Amino acid sequence: MQALERLFNPRGIAIIGASNDPGRPGAQAMNALSQRGYAGGIYPVNPKYQELGGLKSYPAIADVPDPCDVAIVALPAAHVPAIIADCGRRGVRYAVVLGGGFRETGERGRELEAELLRVAREHEVRLVGPNCLGLVNVPDRVFAGFGSMVRPPLMQPGAVSAVIQSGGFGNSLVMRCGAAGIGFRHVVASGNETDLTCAELIDAFVDDPATRVILAYIEGVRDGRAFMAAARRARAAGKPVIVWKAGNSEQGMKAAASHTANMTGSYDIFRAAFRQCGVIEIRDIEDIVDYVRAFLAGRAAPGRRVAVMGGSGGSAVVFSDAADQHGLTLAMLSESTKTVLAQNLPGVASLDNPIDFAAGFLSDANAGRLLASLDAVLADPQVDQLALMLATVVGKPARMTADMLAQAAQRSGKPVMVFWASPRDASPEAYEILERAGIPILSSPARVARTMGVLADHALSPIEQPGDVPAGPRELPDWPDTVLDERRSKQLVAAFGVPVTQDRVFPAAPIEAGAGDLPYPVAVKIVSPDIAHKSDAGGVRLDVRDPSRLAEASRSILESVRRAAPQARLEGLLVSPMIRDGMETIVGVINDEVFGPVVAFGLGGIFAEVLKDLSYRVAPFGVDVARSMIAELRSAPMFAGVRGQSPRDVDALAAALAAVSQGAWQMRDRLQELDINPLLALPAGHGIVAVDALAVLRPAGGGAA
Amino acid sequence: MQALERLFNPRGIAIIGASNDPGRPGAQAMNALSQRGYAGGIYPVNPKYQELGGLKSYPAIADVPDPCDVAIVALPAAHVPAIIADCGRRGVRYAVVLGGGFRETGERGRELEAELLRVAREHEVRLVGPNCLGLVNVPDRVFAGFGSMVRPPLMQPGAVSAVIQSGGFGNSLVMRCGAAGIGFRHVVASGNETDLTCAELIDAFVDDPATRVILAYIEGVRDGRAFMAAARRARAAGKPVIVWKAGNSEQGMKAAASHTANMTGSYDIFRAAFRQCGVIEIRDIEDIVDYVRAFLAGRAAPGRRVAVMGGSGGSAVVFSDAADQHGLTLAMLSESTKTVLAQNLPGVASLDNPIDFAAGFLSDANAGRLLASLDAVLADPQVDQLALMLATVVGKPARMTADMLAQAAQRSGKPVMVFWASPRDASPEAYEILERAGIPILSSPARVARTMGVLADHALSPIEQPGDVPAGPRELPDWPDTVLDERRSKQLVAAFGVPVTQDRVFPAAPIEAGAGDLPYPVAVKIVSPDIAHKSDAGGVRLDVRDPSRLAEASRSILESVRRAAPQARLEGLLVSPMIRDGMETIVGVINDEVFGPVVAFGLGGIFAEVLKDLSYRVAPFGVDVARSMIAELRSAPMFAGVRGQSPRDVDALAAALAAVSQGAWQMRDRLQELDINPLLALPAGHGIVAVDALAVLRPAGGGAA
Repeated sequence: MQALERLFNPRGIAIIGASNDPGRPGAQAMNALSQRGYAGGIYPVNPKYQELGGLKSYPAIADVPDPCDVAIVALPAAHVPAIIADCGRRGVRYAVVLGGGFRETGERGRELEAELLRVAREHEVRLVGPNCLGLVNVPDRVFAGFGSMVRPPLMQPGAVSAVIQSGGFGNSLVMRCGAAGIGFRHVVASGNETDLTCAELIDAFVDDPATRVILAYIEGVRDGRAFMAAARRARAAGKPVIVWKAGNSEQGMKAAASHTANMTGSYDIFRAAFRQCGVIEIRDIEDIVDYVRAFLAGRAAPGRRVAVMGGSGGSAVVFSDAADQHGLTLAMLSESTKTVLAQNLPGVASLDNPIDFAAGFLSDANAGRLLASLDAVLADPQVDQLALMLATVVGKPARMTADMLAQAAQRSGKPVMVFWASPRDASPEAYEILERAGIPILSSPARVARTMGVLADHALSPIEQPGDVPAGPRELPDWPDTVLDERRSKQLVAAFGVPVTQDRVFPAAPIEAGAGDLPYPVAVKIVSPDIAHKSDAGGVRLDVRDPSRLAEASRSILESVRRAAPQARLEGLLVSPMIRDGMETIVGVINDEVFGPVVAFGLGGIFAEVLKDLSYRVAPFGVDVARSMIAELRSAPMFAGVRGQSPRDVDALAAALAAVSQGAWQMRDRLQELDINPLLALPAGHGIVAVDALAVLRPAGGGAA
Repeated sequence: MQALERLFNPRGIAIIGASNDPGRPGAQAMNALSQRGYAGGIYPVNPKYQELGGLKSYPAIADVPDPCDVAIVALPAAHVPAIIADCGRRGVRYAVVLGGGFRETGERGRELEAELLRVAREHEVRLVGPNCLGLVNVPDRVFAGFGSMVRPPLMQPGAVSAVIQSGGFGNSLVMRCGAAGIGFRHVVASGNETDLTCAELIDAFVDDPATRVILAYIEGVRDGRAFMAAARRARAAGKPVIVWKAGNSEQGMKAAASHTANMTGSYDIFRAAFRQCGVIEIRDIEDIVDYVRAFLAGRAAPGRRVAVMGGSGGSAVVFSDAADQHGLTLAMLSESTKTVLAQNLPGVASLDNPIDFAAGFLSDANAGRLLASLDAVLADPQVDQLALMLATVVGKPARMTADMLAQAAQRSGKPVMVFWASPRDASPEAYEILERAGIPILSSPARVARTMGVLADHALSPIEQPGDVPAGPRELPDWPDTVLDERRSKQLVAAFGVPVTQDRVFPAAPIEAGAGDLPYPVAVKIVSPDIAHKSDAGGVRLDVRDPSRLAEASRSILESVRRAAPQARLEGLLVSPMIRDGMETIVGVINDEVFGPVVAFGLGGIFAEVLKDLSYRVAPFGVDVARSMIAELRSAPMFAGVRGQSPRDVDALAAALAAVSQGAWQMRDRLQELDINPLLALPAGHGIVAVDALAVLRPAGGGAA
């Protein structure tokens, strides 16, 4: 049996808190189950009634006859934990908790929710919700919910499964998809996700053979890595995961916090995670409709070379603009294809791609010619996808074109899409022909191009796999502080396998002549566990050229620092060689609450600071991912060498990023933050070197990531 | 009479090339006029027939009775010029030329089109087209076109007028708007725009009292400034101009060239021009529908502070994210508003904005409470616009809500919009109530936020007016070359009013000691009309510190340059002071074919080169526009001083940009290109200075911009 099989296909369902007030969730769930064709047992539980909605009502869950796999709980929050215990004792292994009143309401609710989870675990009951609209298995008529989940317009059966953290908005997505003719398999409003999370639900959808596309509306996740693992499994199983992540902006996060109290996390990190696990992110309802239709068509895009045909030149222009924007190229047609087009299309036609067969060609008399042309284009090895611009065509010409396109598409596995402005009622037959053939009809050429771009991205971009991580956690010296000074931070960086400057540490006293053979010019910096920002305290002098200047510099540093931070422990003076011809980069590690260790990377100075040009990846990862991290910066051309600078050692940079990601992952229980700033990228072949670093640890024995 | 009045409201229309083959444009136009209710005279012209479609057919236009204001010409291209002459002789002042075969087909077509224009001017006939689908005046049933312009689904009467350069695609926009219930006034497919251009048509729409919103699909314009002037007039008249500009990418421009042979021009410049004249640019069909609906509602946005209400928390989260993205802020509600909400909304409701009244509140029993809440929010001076998230609400609650919202909206002039996922057939009455009240229903919270952002931008962003330009064109010395050397280029820049370095020019010979009092350190550069790229030829030495080094540097420059460019005329050596603490910027002038002089601005080095971070404005303009040009750069924070640098003299920079724009405008007949690179921005209060410049002239007496 598949995971959660009995949740989605229960043999019997108890409704605890059923009533005869149709405004109440319990009544709505009971009525939906009995009226929408659910074939299993329906057991209202309410000691006040003998009978409810024509069904026998039971005083308690213990009285419900076998088999009963799911309990829908529609009771005030305070009663729920005890009821869940009863369910467990009765052998009901799943509960759908509809009502709110838990952590979204504050501290008391938070405690109640913790209690609920404890009881559920103890009694081996898996929970959906609380604070949710329930779940629906559409083909099997399991309408185990209330509100918009169970009232018209009802979901139609199909191959899309969805997990929605907000029932109201999530169901809006479902409703719009439904209006566009898209059918559903399972829809789960997961609410607070106290027990069952979107990750586990996506896992179940991957295991469900009838699910072909997975949709998720999420405001936050508790375990980012579990989500990524589920998304990777889905992708490996050939099931696209389309996600709307909300609560990303400051205003949006505030709104989400007062709503379901989900941890929203940093949007930058979510976007990186989505990229790493192949999630298709959407940010508008119409995009969902387009993408779902395209994926349901089941045609994988072999590449980014598209052909566009039609009688509307303007539509082809608009398509071409959007193709450019979405990384598609207009295919160069093969000569043999052009020959077929020349034989079949009218003399005025443009036979280059865009193929413009001029208005008026689409008559029944030309059906054979059109079909031959479509066949030739689809068979052309230079063409990966075909966009047909129907634009304003209606009536008989539309029907003929739809017919020929459906025939041609049947002989080809390549994606075929149509831009068509006609409303359905102006051309119902042609609509039906295209829909039967699984050919998406989109409302603008720009949408066709965007959707084709998504298909190509999905087919061609590899999932970014975690790199190989050396086994076992790293040992740390028994450092007393959580904020490590530069010297110790660099020891850590070096231990990760990233080259650091060859520093020497002197006592915290003026460095007199005779200090030994130093690689002038040098930098001198204060070493203190109490001074994180050395420059601000006057604790740094650069480009010191000789021993006498070094003596002066060290004296002056000690003086400034004592003035700026009289209480600071001064552990020494660090002397480093000045590195020439390095390009400043910044490497950061954040131990994120949701995703654990995440690596950030950017060019130093204005790029990170002013332009916010940073890339992120969830650790650990290998050098390939590190390379894509470097390449996606807007400022990436800098590494190739501009304005007379030599190209940088990107190989060494990628290796360093991968090494940091792996070290950060191994040390995830201890390392809270790490900043290598700057990491100098030297000219190609000369490697990289960390010039300064600052690590912040969690106390030893603290919580794991 | 208004401009083009008789074109849009002709007393009689001749169809030259009418036929009884319903596939032919002439027949379609004739049938559309007679069947769709056109009240004027309909005169088929075709010597082969006595009668066509139940109408008397005339052998020639000369035989058509009075009054006849428009001729629809449906003949092969070669015959058109002669027919236009006939029209002029007959006193027919407007012709709609449907057929193609002109400049879009190559050189012969280009000549034919020139001939057509010459004849039209000579005989005082104004042309629509050629290569177009014609025009429609919907309320007056003037269906003077063919194809999708005149067949079902027919346009419904309304307040939107449109000019579409591509009939097929442009009509797709019209069709989608129609399906969304938007009605039209005039729709003109302008085709090749040989005579009447989109600018002149927009002008006519501005003059038409029944037009409230103007829509344009354009692939290019011939006279960018005429377009801008028309758009500014429209905006001043309170008529939003919504434009889809296509043919922007390389692939799109190629597609456009083979389609209507429009000059597409640089998209960067179009975008700048749109901004300057207040055009609302759209890039997808659904955006048009949203924006047109919002503008037709006739509610101006007093600002960017929005309130969002609903029972779907997720919708509010999504709205808040999008609000952030589109420059809207969630309004801080007044205390008095919160009091009203607390009195009327259920206890569990969130009374902060987003206002979440929880599912279940929307029952008829709560109608009064909802209305009081809506009234309070709309009356709140802190609130500029109201978004209601209906999400999945259907049936009676939807009808009640629509009713209350319509009532509240009637008492307020503020924009009100609804996000609603319900299909129309699930809630037809509520749809009608909202539509009657002019409240736009949009398909996602993100779309509501985006549309509100557009309303706010439109209401709050001033049109960027051209600056005051000193009268009279500038005189230029009688320079023999078109590429000016640095010395002359800087004279030009100085004449525009931009400070340049104090240079001294020495003969093209080694500069010996005793050359005079020079401001060491200096830069030395070769002066030659034949060497545009001085550094590449070894013609530049920077940071020369004293007379002996100057002698060496000048010798070495002459040697390098003679080796690199033996034929070059060497006119001298230019010695400039080295300027310290300047931030490099680049100022460029392009004399664009479509828009005339355009100024480009960016930060020097990697910003312009690697990040393509440049802003553009059509010249001339004043300092306010120059400031917005500076502020819109991604790298703009650099001017405020980052990483210890002092803030830059943005006042002087803005003054310089305005001065360049005005000089470029005055010299538009002569100046082809100008690059000031670098223009150094000094610390605030210290001004700016041009360190190098390169001007390219058009030959004197050449074509005007």
